[in-house]
Amino acid sequence: MGLIVQKFGGTSVGDLERIRNVANRVAKTREQGHQVVVILSAMAGVTDGLIAKAQEISKKPDKRELDVLLATGEQTTAALMAMTLRSMGYAARSLLGFQAEVLTDCSYGDARIIDIGAGRIRKLLEEDNIVIVAGFQGCDNDGNITTLGRGGSDTSAVAVAAAINANTCEIYTDVDGIYTTDPNICSKARKLKHICYDEMLEMASLGAKVLQIRSVEFAKKYNVPVHVRSSFNEEEGTMVVNEDEMMERLVVSGITCNKNEAKITLRKVPDQPGIAAKVFTPIADAGIIVDMIVQNIRQGGQTDLTFTVPEKDFDQAMDLARKIAFEIGTEEVLGDTDIAKVSVTGVGMKNHTGVAAKMFGALAAENINIMLITTSEIRISCVVMEKYAELAVRVLHDAFGLDKE
Amino acid sequence: MGLIVQKFGGTSVGDLERIRNVANRVAKTREQGHQVVVILSAMAGVTDGLIAKAQEISKKPDKRELDVLLATGEQTTAALMAMTLRSMGYAARSLLGFQAEVLTDCSYGDARIIDIGAGRIRKLLEEDNIVIVAGFQGCDNDGNITTLGRGGSDTSAVAVAAAINANTCEIYTDVDGIYTTDPNICSKARKLKHICYDEMLEMASLGAKVLQIRSVEFAKKYNVPVHVRSSFNEEEGTMVVNEDEMMERLVVSGITCNKNEAKITLRKVPDQPGIAAKVFTPIADAGIIVDMIVQNIRQGGQTDLTFTVPEKDFDQAMDLARKIAFEIGTEEVLGDTDIAKVSVTGVGMKNHTGVAAKMFGALAAENINIMLITTSEIRISCVVMEKYAELAVRVLHDAFGLDKE
Repeated sequence: MGLIVQKFGGTSVGDLERIRNVANRVAKTREQGHQVVVILSAMAGVTDGLIAKAQEISKKPDKRELDVLLATGEQTTAALMAMTLRSMGYAARSLLGFQAEVLTDCSYGDARIIDIGAGRIRKLLEEDNIVIVAGFQGCDNDGNITTLGRGGSDTSAVAVAAAINANTCEIYTDVDGIYTTDPNICSKARKLKHICYDEMLEMASLGAKVLQIRSVEFAKKYNVPVHVRSSFNEEEGTMVVNEDEMMERLVVSGITCNKNEAKITLRKVPDQPGIAAKVFTPIADAGIIVDMIVQNIRQGGQTDLTFTVPEKDFDQAMDLARKIAFEIGTEEVLGDTDIAKVSVTGVGMKNHTGVAAKMFGALAAENINIMLITTSEIRISCVVMEKYAELAVRVLHDAFGLDKE
Repeated sequence: MGLIVQKFGGTSVGDLERIRNVANRVAKTREQGHQVVVILSAMAGVTDGLIAKAQEISKKPDKRELDVLLATGEQTTAALMAMTLRSMGYAARSLLGFQAEVLTDCSYGDARIIDIGAGRIRKLLEEDNIVIVAGFQGCDNDGNITTLGRGGSDTSAVAVAAAINANTCEIYTDVDGIYTTDPNICSKARKLKHICYDEMLEMASLGAKVLQIRSVEFAKKYNVPVHVRSSFNEEEGTMVVNEDEMMERLVVSGITCNKNEAKITLRKVPDQPGIAAKVFTPIADAGIIVDMIVQNIRQGGQTDLTFTVPEKDFDQAMDLARKIAFEIGTEEVLGDTDIAKVSVTGVGMKNHTGVAAKMFGALAAENINIMLITTSEIRISCVVMEKYAELAVRVLHDAFGLDKE
């Protein structure tokens, strides 16, 4: 008999019939003798609808009050789920964020969980209840309602699992696990049985939208085994676990691709101390997130400085870059939105040499020119022309043999 | 400069435009230098919609969970109102029931307020905020969400006004005050400037649906001046106050009429101790509320026992009455749904004789037969044939000169 946290997203609880389906699945787990805590999102579309309503009042609605409004979404599904389970004859109780003692900081709209007091959940479990916790919401030290940002219910689930020391945190979603790459791009993509937290973090931040990044950070910090699986079938999905518990040891476990970046180059920048700060301070002040930064030595005390920004911020970033270029007396500013960042990720590369060489070789064999390169300990990213993105993914998937178990 | 509580019902906050209208009115009060606490209902129709949804899950949805669901209604309007006021440049903060420390018992769906800790509201007021409190909801000692029953936002408003010692509790509604009688029945009906708590209690329980009865009980207990007025114009409405503060001293202040009762008579009941208990225990057990009970001495150790019940419970009550009649060996059971209860109410009648005589005389002059009579200290009620209801109201309105200031 175990203690299992099950999280269901907005599509899984989209109407009363789907709520009943989820209730059946929860009940089945209960019947198997497990204690169950269920974390729910709002019904699909509800959160967006509430935001739209708030924006009818003001383009920038007050953040605290927006959280009060948004919290009704998960409150609704939690109550409906508890009612459904009770109508089926199961003991069940809903808890809102403040009732489940999900303590957060007071960054409305993007709050961080500080602590979860597991007392009330534990007590309800001991009284044989299925406990339903409204995801996405918490409250700060003053009792103000907060929300955790997009995908926050994932983090609620993992944090609750950590607080009550659950055996597993199951994340039910509309995909059936984590794949070696996007199956829409590469037909040979294969579902991974295991992936480790660090790999998942790299892949999540690279655009694999299965799990909120913070939920993975939480899972890693508290060593919570996360099972990503489909809410539409009973198949095993992918376990996200500690590196030590990895069963299959792949050098590279996934290929990701992000087309939503743009590249800006300042040419012939004086190679002097303080120049980088001069360039990136105004961009940071404008709230633009810079991803890759590459600088190479150039002849004559000058260098080229290239960086990438989200494509949506490209125009603003170009304006700023031109202003900066003028100030530091440099020659020209080049911009390019037709780029894609292709990355290979795997904890195995820490102990294996030759991954970068293999990657560059595979791309070269297809005449795909590499425009930028950055690396982390477990990831290598190359920027290529956007038109080669899919080809690059398929080539690399083959090169690292990811189609084979 | 005063401290004013303003309560707005579901029609007044039915959409974003109406919420803006209410916000303007609140802002105006604030601009006049007053501190303002606003109590809101859910948007018109929302609570009924949520109940319907819950009943799709179960005919008798779990009461605790239903309260969690229903509480989203007032949470939504409170957040939207605070956003609107803030977008207009006013400091405003919403508080849910648990945040405003509205402590209730744990009778889900019909909870009673035990206490309101005014600390948080006071603090926000001192920080120059307009405080928006979600009506209708509270929480019990264990932090479970409760709701106060139909019209509960009135009670929230009066209770908050009592807790913070407000100068006035303004109840904004779709009527512009309390009338001497229903203007739809009697064209001479006149808006009262003042009415005292006891009169309001009698009139509320007799079917004048302006205020929830419990809100009036609360107002009386804590001596909160309640101002019932229209949300559609700026006119003064009716002040509900302590008897001592009544400006106009009418013997009779209102005529009410209730057509939703039915009358049942058990004939030739043995006039013995214990018979009344035998009759009314099974009816009470069936959850049927008996209103009037009349018993007269009859010849030969027998009596007729007549009582009234809500018309909707008539069939069930008749079945029970027939069973009881059989058990106690009595003769016959008579039922009548075509009745109306017409009442005159006024604290003045405590010190005036002849009110009953005048009432009976006025009805007799129109040949309206009186079937039953009951009285309280400040009310006399007569049951007449339903077809005479409107005529009786008009006759009594004239007889007591209620059209004159």
